[in-house]
Amino acid sequence: MTTSPDSPQKTAAMLIIGDEILSGRTKDANLGYLAEWLVELGIELREARVIADDVEVIAETVNVLRQAYDYLFTTGGIGPTHDDMTIEAVARAFGVPLVLHEGARHNMVEVHGLELNEGRLRMITLPQGCELVETKNAIAPGFQMGNVFVMAGIPKVMQAMLEGIRPRLETSRPYTSITLTAHLPESTLSVPLRELQERNPDVRIGSYPFYTDGIPGADLVIRSRDPARARSVAEDVRLMIAALME
Amino acid sequence: MTTSPDSPQKTAAMLIIGDEILSGRTKDANLGYLAEWLVELGIELREARVIADDVEVIAETVNVLRQAYDYLFTTGGIGPTHDDMTIEAVARAFGVPLVLHEGARHNMVEVHGLELNEGRLRMITLPQGCELVETKNAIAPGFQMGNVFVMAGIPKVMQAMLEGIRPRLETSRPYTSITLTAHLPESTLSVPLRELQERNPDVRIGSYPFYTDGIPGADLVIRSRDPARARSVAEDVRLMIAALME
Repeated sequence: MTTSPDSPQKTAAMLIIGDEILSGRTKDANLGYLAEWLVELGIELREARVIADDVEVIAETVNVLRQAYDYLFTTGGIGPTHDDMTIEAVARAFGVPLVLHEGARHNMVEVHGLELNEGRLRMITLPQGCELVETKNAIAPGFQMGNVFVMAGIPKVMQAMLEGIRPRLETSRPYTSITLTAHLPESTLSVPLRELQERNPDVRIGSYPFYTDGIPGADLVIRSRDPARARSVAEDVRLMIAALME
Repeated sequence: MTTSPDSPQKTAAMLIIGDEILSGRTKDANLGYLAEWLVELGIELREARVIADDVEVIAETVNVLRQAYDYLFTTGGIGPTHDDMTIEAVARAFGVPLVLHEGARHNMVEVHGLELNEGRLRMITLPQGCELVETKNAIAPGFQMGNVFVMAGIPKVMQAMLEGIRPRLETSRPYTSITLTAHLPESTLSVPLRELQERNPDVRIGSYPFYTDGIPGADLVIRSRDPARARSVAEDVRLMIAALME
């Protein structure tokens, strides 16, 4: 893992693959996990997409996203059944054939002691030139192809795969994020908050409204890669809230 | 609401707008809800995207998705603060100006008894030609512009807005979905399951693996708009599981 504190942040996209997410049958839990994990590494998640089990659509979307961002993380569709299409789609996206991966075969047969039936053969037949992701206890192999990291959809397996991916990523200093809660409606906060944002264009100020027992409030989040700047603007926000509460 | 049982399903996309989702600060709960809601109406959710608070990116993505699908549902970014950019972005996407919406003003001032400060004025200054979504208790108005439905990001408010949108959608007969659980690894299921899928191309068979105490299994989901076909293929799947368990 290369950490370059002051280099520009690397950008990333996430691609969540599976009919079951789009039908609501399965509630995705991977986006929130990956988002927080990338924040800690100082990598900026710019976009996420959820798409169906369709080889053409997956291949096209992989190509759009891997060209638009430094890293692409995919989840889902690497199992042995007919509705698992991610491996074939990634091979198509890169224009390479699918070949039996010797490392994945070794892992499945020698390490896990499994017999090679047709379903398992399908799981270890991977895009030519890909590199396995080291994962404890995972049978379906995750892999890297260029800047694309292909992972399982089951949250625990995905999380284990991310630990195998971590050393391959170029990280940078994460954002410092300070949250202040204002017990005021956003409509009252909006003008002074906008002025603060305009005076401090290097710091990002977000406002996230909520209701407590029907009473409106907002969490104000101040973010900067420079901790001193985040603290300084957070102090201005604190004074603004105090003045509005008087 | 027009229900046409045998007409082709309408297609939809969802656009989730907000830095807070991409940073992991807020875990999205709206995709799962909308997905299930659309299934019941017989509308097919084909794609969802999560993007940041950036007017250009929002406007471009709205234009891509509203042209690709029958309906587009957006969540987030309709409040009064500087980081709420969805309203401006939708106006830009449609090439129309932002104008004070008389119905939204009436609702805010006469119905909710609120004074019009600058923040609230911003919330009721909407793309010219849009139509409000009737929503109980919501102050930030949701609205429809062409085939785009613009909703709040707070789950309870979004859910209330969907009820206002429901009568405007063309629905169709929903899919019948039957789930059978197999206590077998997917690698064992994959060959006979693929054969069943190939023999029944009009029915969609999905396989969703899980682990119980480390033992692999899979939920097999059989979906069709024809309930008799779903039942018939589900029976074949049941027999297949029984044969494999022997």
